[in-house]
Amino acid sequence: MAVYTDVSDEELDAFIASYAIGELTSFKGIAEGVENSNYLVHTEAGRYILTLYEKRVAPQDLPYFLSLMEHLADRGISCPLPVRDREGQALKELAGRPAALITFLEGVWVRKPSIEHCAGLGRALAQFHIAGSDFPMHRANSLSLRGWVGLFDAIRDKADGIIPGLKAEIEGELAELGAQWPADLPLGVIHADLFPDNVFFLGERLSGLIDFYFACNDMLAYDVAVCLNAWCFEPDGSFNITKARALLENYEKERKLTAAELDKLPLLARGAAMRFLLTRSYDWVNTDAGALVKQKDPNEYLRKLRFHRGVKSYREYGIGEH
Amino acid sequence: MAVYTDVSDEELDAFIASYAIGELTSFKGIAEGVENSNYLVHTEAGRYILTLYEKRVAPQDLPYFLSLMEHLADRGISCPLPVRDREGQALKELAGRPAALITFLEGVWVRKPSIEHCAGLGRALAQFHIAGSDFPMHRANSLSLRGWVGLFDAIRDKADGIIPGLKAEIEGELAELGAQWPADLPLGVIHADLFPDNVFFLGERLSGLIDFYFACNDMLAYDVAVCLNAWCFEPDGSFNITKARALLENYEKERKLTAAELDKLPLLARGAAMRFLLTRSYDWVNTDAGALVKQKDPNEYLRKLRFHRGVKSYREYGIGEH
Repeated sequence: MAVYTDVSDEELDAFIASYAIGELTSFKGIAEGVENSNYLVHTEAGRYILTLYEKRVAPQDLPYFLSLMEHLADRGISCPLPVRDREGQALKELAGRPAALITFLEGVWVRKPSIEHCAGLGRALAQFHIAGSDFPMHRANSLSLRGWVGLFDAIRDKADGIIPGLKAEIEGELAELGAQWPADLPLGVIHADLFPDNVFFLGERLSGLIDFYFACNDMLAYDVAVCLNAWCFEPDGSFNITKARALLENYEKERKLTAAELDKLPLLARGAAMRFLLTRSYDWVNTDAGALVKQKDPNEYLRKLRFHRGVKSYREYGIGEH
Repeated sequence: MAVYTDVSDEELDAFIASYAIGELTSFKGIAEGVENSNYLVHTEAGRYILTLYEKRVAPQDLPYFLSLMEHLADRGISCPLPVRDREGQALKELAGRPAALITFLEGVWVRKPSIEHCAGLGRALAQFHIAGSDFPMHRANSLSLRGWVGLFDAIRDKADGIIPGLKAEIEGELAELGAQWPADLPLGVIHADLFPDNVFFLGERLSGLIDFYFACNDMLAYDVAVCLNAWCFEPDGSFNITKARALLENYEKERKLTAAELDKLPLLARGAAMRFLLTRSYDWVNTDAGALVKQKDPNEYLRKLRFHRGVKSYREYGIGEH
């Protein structure tokens, strides 16, 4: 829920005029997404999303994100496509921020994903992984093991103020993850943030993926683990094995998980839970009231982490022997 | 900047299905407006705004607001039109809130109105007043003199904490306004909140008015005074007499102001400034950080109030003898 940067009339007019998309007919800030400022733009030529990249996004990473969208769209993945201006530029500047205009993707994100939605997500995730396999650019995952340690250092002294005992629990967990984190699983481009609000549906049919601003090169199965956390827990904290099975079985219709990936899945899911536990904890102690962002509860991801710590085998995620 | 109420998938589907507008294709919260939750809704049939009325809006007032929009649209005023469902209902319920779906109005609100925009606003305001003249319903202005006294009572003890000396200044001003507030000026339906973000333009051309949720029956010239405050001051606090002249002269192309209205205009402008000084002060001390609303500065309206206190005649607003 965020529009951080206001755009003046003159700047907006000049920006729109730099594209061959006709006159502006509507311009509204969107109350979704917490990283960037997003506007819904209607012009005579159609509908677009205008994104102003705020300080959390490193400007040097933007060519990776925008090129990835073009690469994926070229390979038939339904996702927004950066619009190039009259001079062929996709990455521009507006109101002192890096900015891009991207095509509007139809669909609605589901607040409460069903089994069918999880099935669609699994298939789309694997298609995304396959489509990204020949993407030539590289971006390290800044929110993997080393990034977690850095985040924890920044909140260490405040951790027990968020949740009593959190400091010791994260310390122990980070030590175990550091000792066991795999280095030999299949790599590729991952979305890294494929939560329900980044996946659009029209009814039961998945209509596309959005928000590639955490995409990076990392283990493909880590992306699966992020989705298990984001899609397969119920609001009461319970793990829905039927949704997990739907997600994993449909993923494997497009891309088989290797035996090593399956073995490491519980560990990857712990790591994926740690990543969101840490960023949410960091935001919890660092977001000022003026930021107009709804705080997300770190506790939710601590509970997910604990769940996966108790998982002995990937079979507990609902799929059988390979 | 506000979406206060979340809508579940099931509720949304049932709500959309109750209208003859086809399937939902997009649903996004809008980061504008501070009173209600607003969503931009696309369906196979077109574009709509879905508004959930939050606690500041009294449910019993909603038929007035919705009927007014229909009345105005019938008379050629460009404004959103409530959509009736398959059973003919415009006022509905969603997520435990009163809710209405209204048509989408093209246009962009201008951050920095030009003289031409002020001219267009003046003309549209008068057309609105004329179109409302035979509207049969009645709603008292709850934010006039008596309402101001009530608001002041609620913040009296905290006023000097907002701006030193504010308590005494409001007390003195309310006494003068109470003694001099006119009772014999032409009455009608007023918008009462016609700020730039409630007026859409396509380029220089005014494309319509929105947000009738403060509309009520009161002195027409008070509405003019609200607009003088909202449109004719520069960001540095100076009064732009050229913009005021454009607003008033164009208003009078549609509806002549009476001699009594002109005489009272400086007083009405003080009252209009008082109204927004008080609501902003109230919000300043009563909005909690979780409300996700950008605080508006009460100081801006204190300065406007002081400006009008120094005005001796309506001629200082840029128009001559009648």
